[in-house]
Amino acid sequence: MPEGRAEVLTPVIVLVRPQMGENIGMAARAMANFGLSSLRLVAPRDGWDEEGDVRRIALDVAVGASEVVEQAPCFETAAAAVADCHKVFATTARERGQLKPVLGGDALAAEALERGSAGQRIAILFGPERTGLSNDEVNLADAIVSFPVDPAHASLNLAQAVGLVAYEWRKAAEGAAPPFSFDPATLPATREQAQGFFDQLVVELDAAGYFLIPDKQDIMRRNLINIFHRIGMTEADVKTLRGMVSALAQGRRRRAKL
Amino acid sequence: MPEGRAEVLTPVIVLVRPQMGENIGMAARAMANFGLSSLRLVAPRDGWDEEGDVRRIALDVAVGASEVVEQAPCFETAAAAVADCHKVFATTARERGQLKPVLGGDALAAEALERGSAGQRIAILFGPERTGLSNDEVNLADAIVSFPVDPAHASLNLAQAVGLVAYEWRKAAEGAAPPFSFDPATLPATREQAQGFFDQLVVELDAAGYFLIPDKQDIMRRNLINIFHRIGMTEADVKTLRGMVSALAQGRRRRAKL
Repeated sequence: MPEGRAEVLTPVIVLVRPQMGENIGMAARAMANFGLSSLRLVAPRDGWDEEGDVRRIALDVAVGASEVVEQAPCFETAAAAVADCHKVFATTARERGQLKPVLGGDALAAEALERGSAGQRIAILFGPERTGLSNDEVNLADAIVSFPVDPAHASLNLAQAVGLVAYEWRKAAEGAAPPFSFDPATLPATREQAQGFFDQLVVELDAAGYFLIPDKQDIMRRNLINIFHRIGMTEADVKTLRGMVSALAQGRRRRAKL
Repeated sequence: MPEGRAEVLTPVIVLVRPQMGENIGMAARAMANFGLSSLRLVAPRDGWDEEGDVRRIALDVAVGASEVVEQAPCFETAAAAVADCHKVFATTARERGQLKPVLGGDALAAEALERGSAGQRIAILFGPERTGLSNDEVNLADAIVSFPVDPAHASLNLAQAVGLVAYEWRKAAEGAAPPFSFDPATLPATREQAQGFFDQLVVELDAAGYFLIPDKQDIMRRNLINIFHRIGMTEADVKTLRGMVSALAQGRRRRAKL
């Protein structure tokens, strides 16, 4: 399929000997949140029967990501799970005395994106909750992935670790921009609109006796205008602020008449 | 306390009306993993009694981070929880029609570090699991924080979201380097050591009749050497490889003598 080359291959997440169905489900959910769908399992501790408890719990916990769990193939060994992969990364919380490059999550994501775009299949191995990957499983990998955890409290939950990899993948794949932003249709007020408000403000403040000391009038006016500049006012903001100033000034006049 | 200024103030994580003790505990654990300890609660759905179930579950789930849970003050409103904070960020999964800057996790962390280093207290609000923050709670914030979730599967777990903020904070505060790396005492092999191995290899291959076509000898030798260069050999690697080649070559000679 030469057209397959045009698509970016997303990384394969491999959970090696996971202990709990909850964590399989939470990992799948974290993956789906950030656009990953290829999950592989290696010998879950309590089995992976079609009708078994572990699978049922994983599906329950996955919520909207149950498809990720349903489609996950199960292997007997980590070596079998990564047999068709071109590059393998092992996540470990501690140094393993194996001389391999050590990458953070962002460097991993950059490499996975580059290789995935070139049609290479990347696998990332995650070990069992308590013990992590065995040394032989780490030995399957080209490089190690580790997160900058506080050594005093290093107990990264399995699904949290999968979530960080998925999050970094999506940041790399989609760019770091958040999913929404200022409405680009919302234009800042023009200088003329802003100046119209400032003029109104100065007139009303002057009428209210705000500028008591003539020598200080200019600096007071400039300071005030700079405060409003920091808002980055839109056209709508200017209308709101003009209304606010009018209400304050007219209310004062009304009270003065009573 | 002028000396307090020298310390970086770490961000305050505010869980607003959290529904489940499990998520409070998991959030505390995620915080501790990445060096955050200041947690505040606002009106947990099922209470926060000293002897109550919610608190007990949160402490159980927090594992090594129970201190974070124990020290978390509880407020009646989000406004009260952030009253002493200098800058407030609201996490939301969707656009709220409130014109505020929208930051990703990395931009948030950079700003939190800059302000924290200047002695400013930053708060980050997280809403209830199902509904997220109310519009009035979002209105407390100077800016919005959002993660680049896949719109088709946007159901970021509360503790996952807290974990991403904590992870980005630590990346910013500690630099992106993973917590361990190559042992800097492990020097690459010198060129002389590497060349000694290559010479041995070529001599042994030549003796074994590897270079059948004299015209191709140079290119075969160069290709082979480049493969070994890619290892980035250490002194110990060179010794291991020399032993490997010797064993292969001597084994062949031994067999030849039989």
